[in-house]
Amino acid sequence: MRICVINPNTAAAMTDVIAAAARSVARPDCEIVAVTSTMGPESIESHYDEALAVPGLLRAINDHPGCDGYLIACFGDPGLDAAREIADAPVLGIAEAAMHLAAPLGRRFSIVTTLDRTIGRAIDLVDHYGFAGHCGGVHACDIPVLELETNPATADILEKSCAAALSTDDSDAIVLGCAGMADLAHRIGAAIGAPVIDGVAAGVGMLTAMAAIGVHTGTASGEFRRPPRKRYSGPLRDFEIT
Amino acid sequence: MRICVINPNTAAAMTDVIAAAARSVARPDCEIVAVTSTMGPESIESHYDEALAVPGLLRAINDHPGCDGYLIACFGDPGLDAAREIADAPVLGIAEAAMHLAAPLGRRFSIVTTLDRTIGRAIDLVDHYGFAGHCGGVHACDIPVLELETNPATADILEKSCAAALSTDDSDAIVLGCAGMADLAHRIGAAIGAPVIDGVAAGVGMLTAMAAIGVHTGTASGEFRRPPRKRYSGPLRDFEIT
Amino acid sequence: MRICVINPNTAAAMTDVIAAAARSVARPDCEIVAVTSTMGPESIESHYDEALAVPGLLRAINDHPGCDGYLIACFGDPGLDAAREIADAPVLGIAEAAMHLAAPLGRRFSIVTTLDRTIGRAIDLVDHYGFAGHCGGVHACDIPVLELETNPATADILEKSCAAALSTDDSDAIVLGCAGMADLAHRIGAAIGAPVIDGVAAGVGMLTAMAAIGVHTGTASGEFRRPPRKRYSGPLRDFEIT
Amino acid sequence: MRICVINPNTAAAMTDVIAAAARSVARPDCEIVAVTSTMGPESIESHYDEALAVPGLLRAINDHPGCDGYLIACFGDPGLDAAREIADAPVLGIAEAAMHLAAPLGRRFSIVTTLDRTIGRAIDLVDHYGFAGHCGGVHACDIPVLELETNPATADILEKSCAAALSTDDSDAIVLGCAGMADLAHRIGAAIGAPVIDGVAAGVGMLTAMAAIGVHTGTASGEFRRPPRKRYSGPLRDFEIT
Amino acid sequence: MRICVINPNTAAAMTDVIAAAARSVARPDCEIVAVTSTMGPESIESHYDEALAVPGLLRAINDHPGCDGYLIACFGDPGLDAAREIADAPVLGIAEAAMHLAAPLGRRFSIVTTLDRTIGRAIDLVDHYGFAGHCGGVHACDIPVLELETNPATADILEKSCAAALSTDDSDAIVLGCAGMADLAHRIGAAIGAPVIDGVAAGVGMLTAMAAIGVHTGTASGEFRRPPRKRYSGPLRDFEIT
Amino acid sequence: MRICVINPNTAAAMTDVIAAAARSVARPDCEIVAVTSTMGPESIESHYDEALAVPGLLRAINDHPGCDGYLIACFGDPGLDAAREIADAPVLGIAEAAMHLAAPLGRRFSIVTTLDRTIGRAIDLVDHYGFAGHCGGVHACDIPVLELETNPATADILEKSCAAALSTDDSDAIVLGCAGMADLAHRIGAAIGAPVIDGVAAGVGMLTAMAAIGVHTGTASGEFRRPPRKRYSGPLRDFEIT
Repeated sequence: MRICVINPNTAAAMTDVIAAAARSVARPDCEIVAVTSTMGPESIESHYDEALAVPGLLRAINDHPGCDGYLIACFGDPGLDAAREIADAPVLGIAEAAMHLAAPLGRRFSIVTTLDRTIGRAIDLVDHYGFAGHCGGVHACDIPVLELETNPATADILEKSCAAALSTDDSDAIVLGCAGMADLAHRIGAAIGAPVIDGVAAGVGMLTAMAAIGVHTGTASGEFRRPPRKRYSGPLRDFEIT
Repeated sequence: MRICVINPNTAAAMTDVIAAAARSVARPDCEIVAVTSTMGPESIESHYDEALAVPGLLRAINDHPGCDGYLIACFGDPGLDAAREIADAPVLGIAEAAMHLAAPLGRRFSIVTTLDRTIGRAIDLVDHYGFAGHCGGVHACDIPVLELETNPATADILEKSCAAALSTDDSDAIVLGCAGMADLAHRIGAAIGAPVIDGVAAGVGMLTAMAAIGVHTGTASGEFRRPPRKRYSGPLRDFEIT
Repeated sequence: MRICVINPNTAAAMTDVIAAAARSVARPDCEIVAVTSTMGPESIESHYDEALAVPGLLRAINDHPGCDGYLIACFGDPGLDAAREIADAPVLGIAEAAMHLAAPLGRRFSIVTTLDRTIGRAIDLVDHYGFAGHCGGVHACDIPVLELETNPATADILEKSCAAALSTDDSDAIVLGCAGMADLAHRIGAAIGAPVIDGVAAGVGMLTAMAAIGVHTGTASGEFRRPPRKRYSGPLRDFEIT
Repeated sequence: MRICVINPNTAAAMTDVIAAAARSVARPDCEIVAVTSTMGPESIESHYDEALAVPGLLRAINDHPGCDGYLIACFGDPGLDAAREIADAPVLGIAEAAMHLAAPLGRRFSIVTTLDRTIGRAIDLVDHYGFAGHCGGVHACDIPVLELETNPATADILEKSCAAALSTDDSDAIVLGCAGMADLAHRIGAAIGAPVIDGVAAGVGMLTAMAAIGVHTGTASGEFRRPPRKRYSGPLRDFEIT
Repeated sequence: MRICVINPNTAAAMTDVIAAAARSVARPDCEIVAVTSTMGPESIESHYDEALAVPGLLRAINDHPGCDGYLIACFGDPGLDAAREIADAPVLGIAEAAMHLAAPLGRRFSIVTTLDRTIGRAIDLVDHYGFAGHCGGVHACDIPVLELETNPATADILEKSCAAALSTDDSDAIVLGCAGMADLAHRIGAAIGAPVIDGVAAGVGMLTAMAAIGVHTGTASGEFRRPPRKRYSGPLRDFEIT
Repeated sequence: MRICVINPNTAAAMTDVIAAAARSVARPDCEIVAVTSTMGPESIESHYDEALAVPGLLRAINDHPGCDGYLIACFGDPGLDAAREIADAPVLGIAEAAMHLAAPLGRRFSIVTTLDRTIGRAIDLVDHYGFAGHCGGVHACDIPVLELETNPATADILEKSCAAALSTDDSDAIVLGCAGMADLAHRIGAAIGAPVIDGVAAGVGMLTAMAAIGVHTGTASGEFRRPPRKRYSGPLRDFEIT
């Protein structure tokens, strides 16, 4: 079994964190293929970054055919529906996976993300996936994505943010709102005494389940069939489907 | 890793079907402990059956401590919240697990259950778990639970019901609405050309993911803490928590 | 006219409180049949208690045929759907009845329950009955059920909790979240200057209305028809429908 | 106990039907005060009619102080919030009352109204009262209000419409969508084998329950306090609050 | 192009404020016809006022045929559906228009209204128009309608209320909750550094768009067809449709 | 006043249709700047096309600073949130604008789009903008985007699709689901006797209203502030914010 985990930004150090988190939960017979996007922003902290990370994500999927599942390792789940149209196997975003796994762990979960400007996107995803009744709130820890790994205070700040979120929202579980936090899930969970879900691990788990069952994205309604062929031009002309 | 899969009715033949489905997707290092309830109804086809299956389910959990996850193998998810209060590890219902795994496989899924009198309960679960926007409809194939394994036409009837549901609801995926259908998921999926999710396999997959991550049911809000001790009397006096 | 009010726990003293509340609002020609459950927990403060109170409740309904309405006098409304399948007359839970009567009394109501671990169940019922837009919040007064009648400070504490709820939620009415609070509704209402609804009185009122109109639970959709007969075994074998 | 039932149109014959329905369910010690509006439209079949029926309704309430409850006997529940501000006792609309009483009688109810142009208003009320999940559909029988009592085919047409609604919506109960249908509830219920709720009877029942409990419309949030005094002019100058 | 802006209360000074706001945004070729109601309350601060303002509003529409759009300049949007049945051109309420224009200006907007007793009606409109997910909260500045123009502190108080709402709700935009605040939108917007929407200007803009496109209220479903003719009596007999 | 209307696909012929529709409703003093994307797909009929049209859209906005409003002329509203972060003036998508203008024109509207694979995206937008209660359904006419202008049967097919949608959904208005249909709105409206809204005209109208009022996208919550600067690489390196 092979799961392809794609970091849709270009920061290779973050891919290492993501890959480690993925491998820590993969079943013995599962290979993790960790991929860094080759184009676009080096971190994703705005709708603008997110939109411009999608071409690189789609290219990464195209460049790694034959996997049993694809995981988009950015909490905005950029390009998820487009990825489903072109991938040969199920595709999950880490926000989606984290929420699916966190919901059954209690009455409600809280999300703790990076900058407060990303809260809106998280709320949109909560609504879209159906978790409005299960998410107690979305909170920011105010650490930029690329500082997560370099700021020595990250773990402490994030731990405090998670504890506060749990209490403010009267929640039972925490969802970490950035792939760059993946390495901190266990430490924070132990510190606050509550389940802490990192979407990378959650996504590998859910994709593994789908692969073991042997299911693919459904195409009966037509929405997720392979896109119609047409002319592409300009710097994105290579994205033309052949 | 050990996952305890509980059939909350007393039909041992159905437990065999469930155990086989669970084992077919379990990772190499995962032991499936399949348990048949020792009290209550031999099948669950009404709110009355479901309510009276819960004591047997809770006893089964109590009798099998030390597992890494518990799966309630009846599509009504009976006793789920109570089970979460007493189990040492995460608990899932198969309806819950199936919907979580089916939602990311397309625009919407359809549920195909046994008797039409069970449709209401399925709708309640769809709403409760947050999938009202992802479930296109709940349909009955009109086969009683205990006939699923004995009626030679089961596979054909169920296949037709699933194909009709897919088309009526403009859905991309099917969720099978009874643990007794677990052995038919692959055959129907192949026949109708769409992902078909059986909750037993989905539940094993999701519990495996939770176990790999190392999370338990959260207790911070208080709701899922161990129940307060008190006197129990009558035929259920043994359920007193000691 | 005869209304059967069932206390689904085994605490007879609480049944007395419930019966008095029921009789205080019954119309002159209405007999209140107050019944205490003969099996299960002596109070209901967890999902576990609630699940294990249901067999006793169903037995009580079975043992008192021929009434014009049945009221489940526990705020979790345990076993409500199952009871509807087997009773010959309409069945209400006191949470359900209280919310239906409280909603038209203002912009929104607040619920004040016993222990905070019961808040989740109340929220589920609010959602299920359709009152998410009418319920401003669910609050706990932190008094265990069996202490409600014995703690001399109960009335004062509950009054303060209700006043605080009204103000926090900007509500117009209070719903009391436990049958054991039934005797305090008037006193608290007078003290806080707002309508306070106890579900026992509300339930008797609504069942009386249904009986006067002459309606029963509808069975057209199939869901609430009498359950199919089947074998029951173990300590619950007497629940087999004959 | 005195319940004031107000027909907000000027058709006295319809008031007779309403009064009879109210009296048929009133408890022995309850007096029904039936009032016909003295101004506005002779029937209510549009938003325009409904808006212009409100002054007459408010005058009727003002002219009958000292009752224990007020029922607005038009299925659009015209002027309900305004009535709550000026009445000394609880106020219900018949749509509101019917839905509250019908919801606990099954999985879902269907509404059968008069002209199809009134369907929209019924949908708004369903949403507003919280019954979107409990109402299977709103249907018109295409009989104008004033023909309900004069058209000899009314009962047959309405019976067919109700049976069709039950089947189309997979419902368990029917709510009649016009006060002028009140006399037909029993006949139709017997014919279609399902509970049929007329809002006049339902409203008397719920107001009786409120009166027996001794509650009034809550004013804590401020919304339903007596309106501020101010100058009124033109044909409505008599409505100035003094 | 002619847009008719109706002040449904009888305070002519407030009509001047409204007319000025309307004209300040009207396109060069658009005439604003500003009308003051000739009957009913001099200000609208309760459900009672609102209900009794509707006849005057409907008369004003009837008295000004041939316009290209009608705007109801009271934030409760009184009589909106009735007005749509009788007007020859599109009709908007200022609450409706303001919310439609404010929603695309950010993540969510806050409403700041006059007295707290009007908050409930604003919430009803938010829900009815579909903006429950876009409205962060409804707040009162506690200034009665008729004091808005006379109280020298109005601008300061309102500015503070708007700034507080923005911060409390984490909103991006403000909707002013009374037509009498129309003249303050720019000043407050500049002071708090956020878009402030007055419904009068918003309504003129949206009606202009509808007129330019050439659309009217649709009547295909039947709901908004001209009301059926019937007898009207009493002080409102002149409202009989001829 | 200058409104920039951007066709986010590369088909210049379609830009002509869009520009004409925009100019037909623009006020006399409003200049329409019509722009064709210079990179990406020549039509947008899949999530994949949509994602890859966003860079071209963002470039177009960047290349046309100083306008009073920006309209994204593709019914999927691609890149809307990202555009709001970088534009100096309000930004609307045509789906968003069309729904805001259609909702007040009746009880509900129907959407008629091109290929059935685009229905899902339209449903997501309906939900996101808050129109789930106002949209009766989304339908496909099965004409690919680029054939809309070349297929001589387009007008007839679309007219039939719109009439069918109106009847099936019991709707009062139609929203056209593709910018390429803009030239047919009047003809279809006349043919089916119902308001037909094209989002290009609606968007120009709403942006004009916003410009006349003088409001911009709000930035108080932080979400729509200018994106943080960071390194961009690969074919999209020019998108780095300087």
